[in-house]
Amino acid sequence: MINNHDGSLATTLKQRRQKLAQLVDFPVILWSGHPSPRNFRANSFPFRASSHFLYFAGLPLTNAVIGLNDGKLDLFMDKPAPGSALWHGETPSPEEIAEMIGADRVFPLSELQLHSQGAATIAVQNPTTYSQQQELLGRAVGAADAPKGIDLDLAKAIISLRLYHDEGALSELCQAAEVSIAAHKAGMAATPKAKLEAEVRGAMEGVIIAHNMTRAYTSIVTVHGEVLHNGEYHHSLQPGELLLADVGAETPMGWAADITRTWPVTGKFSPTQRDIYNVVKEAHDFCIENLYPGVEYREIHMTAAGVMAEGLIDLGILRGDISDLVAMDAHALFFPHGVGHLLGLDVHDMEDLGDLAGYAPGRERSDRFGLGFLRLDRPLEAGMLVTIEPGFYQVPGILNDPERRSTYKDMVDWDRLAQFDDVRGIRIEDDVLITETGAEVLTAGLPTDLEAVEDLVRGV
Amino acid sequence: MINNHDGSLATTLKQRRQKLAQLVDFPVILWSGHPSPRNFRANSFPFRASSHFLYFAGLPLTNAVIGLNDGKLDLFMDKPAPGSALWHGETPSPEEIAEMIGADRVFPLSELQLHSQGAATIAVQNPTTYSQQQELLGRAVGAADAPKGIDLDLAKAIISLRLYHDEGALSELCQAAEVSIAAHKAGMAATPKAKLEAEVRGAMEGVIIAHNMTRAYTSIVTVHGEVLHNGEYHHSLQPGELLLADVGAETPMGWAADITRTWPVTGKFSPTQRDIYNVVKEAHDFCIENLYPGVEYREIHMTAAGVMAEGLIDLGILRGDISDLVAMDAHALFFPHGVGHLLGLDVHDMEDLGDLAGYAPGRERSDRFGLGFLRLDRPLEAGMLVTIEPGFYQVPGILNDPERRSTYKDMVDWDRLAQFDDVRGIRIEDDVLITETGAEVLTAGLPTDLEAVEDLVRGV
Repeated sequence: MINNHDGSLATTLKQRRQKLAQLVDFPVILWSGHPSPRNFRANSFPFRASSHFLYFAGLPLTNAVIGLNDGKLDLFMDKPAPGSALWHGETPSPEEIAEMIGADRVFPLSELQLHSQGAATIAVQNPTTYSQQQELLGRAVGAADAPKGIDLDLAKAIISLRLYHDEGALSELCQAAEVSIAAHKAGMAATPKAKLEAEVRGAMEGVIIAHNMTRAYTSIVTVHGEVLHNGEYHHSLQPGELLLADVGAETPMGWAADITRTWPVTGKFSPTQRDIYNVVKEAHDFCIENLYPGVEYREIHMTAAGVMAEGLIDLGILRGDISDLVAMDAHALFFPHGVGHLLGLDVHDMEDLGDLAGYAPGRERSDRFGLGFLRLDRPLEAGMLVTIEPGFYQVPGILNDPERRSTYKDMVDWDRLAQFDDVRGIRIEDDVLITETGAEVLTAGLPTDLEAVEDLVRGV
Repeated sequence: MINNHDGSLATTLKQRRQKLAQLVDFPVILWSGHPSPRNFRANSFPFRASSHFLYFAGLPLTNAVIGLNDGKLDLFMDKPAPGSALWHGETPSPEEIAEMIGADRVFPLSELQLHSQGAATIAVQNPTTYSQQQELLGRAVGAADAPKGIDLDLAKAIISLRLYHDEGALSELCQAAEVSIAAHKAGMAATPKAKLEAEVRGAMEGVIIAHNMTRAYTSIVTVHGEVLHNGEYHHSLQPGELLLADVGAETPMGWAADITRTWPVTGKFSPTQRDIYNVVKEAHDFCIENLYPGVEYREIHMTAAGVMAEGLIDLGILRGDISDLVAMDAHALFFPHGVGHLLGLDVHDMEDLGDLAGYAPGRERSDRFGLGFLRLDRPLEAGMLVTIEPGFYQVPGILNDPERRSTYKDMVDWDRLAQFDDVRGIRIEDDVLITETGAEVLTAGLPTDLEAVEDLVRGV
């Protein structure tokens, strides 16, 4: 457990900064950030500390800064303002927090300038903090997705640590996975009586909140699964529809889970829904079976594409040879996104750094229709955590595009496809840890098997 | 209903801007704002449009701007980026939105500069948008709580409208109140089986989400009610404790409710808890009975103070004459905050403008212990919506302060007070509309009566 107070947090953090010290020979200053105001200053969004700060500081401290230098940890934070206890209660003192995280020294923020000479940093998302970073360092700091100079060197060093999850991280990630599994089960159980998508979302997020966690990202709970990042929840649930739920919890220390399941509103898949579901599940299972250290994630994506193409050929939706279809991106008509991404302190881990973490040095995003949305292109290694999330969607903007209909005219049996019009979107997503010998599904406690999903919805 | 599409939204908005046109003779430009990034750009906090924008534009449009000039409405927004439909679905076009809100003209954002000459505005909370406001207007724009020149004139004009709720606003406010009532009932019902504060919070916020609403502010659900803005939910619920829940819903159009109830974890108040609860309830009821057009809200606050003092004298906790005790702020030892605030699009309505809305012209915050936290000091008028929320708290920082203990040495029976140590904090809060003849409690559907609260917790 990373968030206990028996010293293991301090030990975990010490190991992380000692590893960092082997990679950089300059001082490092990391900001936690400020709360972002919502409609007025005192009514802010829930505070989320910068992930890079959380990785080395362990606790979600508001408006705090850490210095990392040669394996030593300095904590910069102010004592609560007088009168703060009335509104916010007694909070641990900077000295107590320093003890919890194993900081070597503690200073008020006013002394930060004295200790920041020549330091590298990573830009924080909150604009107020970002301004302070530049002011304090007395220089331009590139946005997180465009770091330069020592900031770029620092970003690369941090990536080389955060790519591989240590025990402290895994403990948190497993907790996030467990609560996300419970949320999905609650969502399935709530579906038969729900009239609106929002009701299922309420059941799922209610579980996350009840475990004192927060959602790691904007939940997708929709009968319009063909809209990939659907943030609407007002549709009614009609018999015969599928509900797609992409919902994940985040622990108080910031570690995320990311799970998608798709289930029938009535608890019973139609024959056409079963057929497509099983194609997606086969892709999902085959990808996971083929995860091991050394394999290229891009190959896993192409594996998913191949299994999807094969399944759609078997159903009579696609026509032709599997490898020809995949080479032509015909699978991407129905599976237009990547098969997954890194997962850790961020649901798309380290995406604040652009593709610096997701893409191995020297690699860039493809502009191919079937690869442009692939967020991860690296050889996998033990300790990495990735999602595997193949899907099938009937996106009107893709399937009705005259140019695409012409390109893929002979590869798709459009009449046969029309028989599957009760399948708007199906995705199955799990969180998978690469181990020394293969892979371990952290979210395996939530079934993907079609009958088991039906049983959970129907409560049998 | 403000959020229907039968033309009443457009009518409501037209009336609002016609009223504004009678108050200002300069053009007005209002920005909705940008989403605030959370840990990376694509993972943002749920978007909340600026309340001033929402008041005149009706819909929570992202990155949109409206121009108000002589009762006319211009809408500035861009069409969705190509490919956006894949990720976010088909969205209404700017022209369709213009139709819904009754805009006279619609322009892309690139034409905003041409139409912003000499315009007044209100600073948006999102720093990215705030920078754009200043850049586009080519001048400094004071922060929302420090407007100057025509921006100050605009703020005053908007306040004089937003202080009085029209039918469209009341319809939304009543919906927020109803869902908040349901959330509190769910929280009470969930308490006996809950082990942690977080579980009760999950039950309450789950109801809000299930109604496709959001929380209007950070929920307080705590056995440590003496921490006024407690944002922690990890404490266990122990028999004999009171749970204080301050939770309110916000409609998709941004209108808020704000309700507090305090209930026993077991469903049964102890004798000491009953005694204090009834003092707070008496203050609550007496305040509401005395609300009518023309009354000074500050007097309502002093009324609450007097009733609290009287009740505490009767219980033997305070000693002396009611008016002497109130004049000395002895009540504020236990009731250190104001009796309530404005409510509308913001839970503290228009608090982005500092005290400009809460305090009548020429009035300023007192530095008196018992008045410094009063957020509203105006004569009440029909159409205003206020909260009434007296409370009793044993705040260690106040009661153990040597200076205060000395000042109030003879006014408090400290030994008698010690007998009430199972009462850390009790607050009862309702949302009350000032009417032509008196007041109407929008949240009356949730009982305040002690026995009725016990019954809701115990499910009888």
